[in-house]
Amino acid sequence: MKPILKIIKIGGNVIDDEMALQSFLKDFAALPSPKILVHGGGKIATQIATKLGVETNMVGGRRITDQASLDVVVMTYAGLINKKVVALLQKNHCNAIGLSGADAGSILSRKRTHPEINFGFVGDVQSVHSGNIDKLLQAGFTPVFCAITHDAAGQLLNTNADTIASEVAIGMSESYQAELIYCFEKKGVLTDINDEDSVIEHIDSQKYIELKNDKIIADGMLPKMENCFHALQNKVSKVIIGHPSIIGDKKKMFTTLAI
Amino acid sequence: MKPILKIIKIGGNVIDDEMALQSFLKDFAALPSPKILVHGGGKIATQIATKLGVETNMVGGRRITDQASLDVVVMTYAGLINKKVVALLQKNHCNAIGLSGADAGSILSRKRTHPEINFGFVGDVQSVHSGNIDKLLQAGFTPVFCAITHDAAGQLLNTNADTIASEVAIGMSESYQAELIYCFEKKGVLTDINDEDSVIEHIDSQKYIELKNDKIIADGMLPKMENCFHALQNKVSKVIIGHPSIIGDKKKMFTTLAI
Repeated sequence: MKPILKIIKIGGNVIDDEMALQSFLKDFAALPSPKILVHGGGKIATQIATKLGVETNMVGGRRITDQASLDVVVMTYAGLINKKVVALLQKNHCNAIGLSGADAGSILSRKRTHPEINFGFVGDVQSVHSGNIDKLLQAGFTPVFCAITHDAAGQLLNTNADTIASEVAIGMSESYQAELIYCFEKKGVLTDINDEDSVIEHIDSQKYIELKNDKIIADGMLPKMENCFHALQNKVSKVIIGHPSIIGDKKKMFTTLAI
Repeated sequence: MKPILKIIKIGGNVIDDEMALQSFLKDFAALPSPKILVHGGGKIATQIATKLGVETNMVGGRRITDQASLDVVVMTYAGLINKKVVALLQKNHCNAIGLSGADAGSILSRKRTHPEINFGFVGDVQSVHSGNIDKLLQAGFTPVFCAITHDAAGQLLNTNADTIASEVAIGMSESYQAELIYCFEKKGVLTDINDEDSVIEHIDSQKYIELKNDKIIADGMLPKMENCFHALQNKVSKVIIGHPSIIGDKKKMFTTLAI
């Protein structure tokens, strides 16, 4: 029986809220090891970009990461946010080690190519060096990933944090029963976006198709759900979507996904 | 016989010069493991602080690290510079892992207290968790430290990079023959600051006192020399001061210190 490994992803809603972050990290620190945290960016990167006079470039509705924007996300995600999270976890007696995908060669990505749009320094995950990540876990550390990867040719790349979480979970599934938990601002996947308590407890592939057809799952939830099913189809044993408070309180509602 | 461990510190002169940085990192990557890199900050932090409108506060001739300044150095040192260095080392097949003192609980520091001056978020190194750093070395990683530490109570602190290098070298001396190499803009300690080739090859404690009395060693060199002798007095087996190019070219001149 493989040991359980929890991979928990938190988004901007936790990062941006000091009280929520402190509370979540206390709960996360109290979880048994091994475990991995993946964090998104939040509004801080945009605020810093604005202050630095770095313009947000959108092409075809998509954000472009030019050199100045890459510098901002590297500073903010790998520097400001990652080190704050690590320091707070250390305070809570969790032996955290902050990582970008370049550190320990943990996540290799490839610069995104598109026939029409030049996305700039955006990376799509190519492979996860699960052996190196496992060495850190075996040594008793708790990896904390930010959403920056590298191409092994010296280039850092901006990468989607949800994707990092699912790819790390997939990579670690060789040696662990990987449980992937996406924490976001809602209590789970909702049937009615205006009703906070309308959490759908279980979604399987069939149900997912129905929910998509009925437009109950739409917009920003679609790529998140794709990441979830991609993980389940690649040996991740469990995928959950819920509010960060589920980490500390097992009685709370959340959505469990299955294939 | 303990294995040899090189701890190499590079300063702003290398960080600020793209060509020099690339060249140094290629040489560093080619060194046999185990090894540790410590890097300073360079001008980038000041440039970013200026752009962000963060004022440099000096009290009694000393730089004060307020919250805004701390954010800037964390972003720049632990984010922008550290990840750039790590990505370039990975390119050169060195399995680097970037760390602040908070990561892996590696360097604990204490907020500096002074009867008259409030230095703000400046940390003096209290202890080095050599066991955790050794776990990383044993796992085949090359730690790359930036000059940020933590107080284990959730607070990040700005710390002198020369001191980090000497304290890490001292900490690792339990298990290794630690060799501490300070790289800076000169070829070594010079008898004549205007003569680049006037390198003093050997300095022992006695010679150091003479050089201080003769005002040949003065100003900014004094704290660096104090770090060197502090290391030698605490079981570091070798301390060298020289130009970054000595890492790749053993024929170059440098200064060796002894007690």
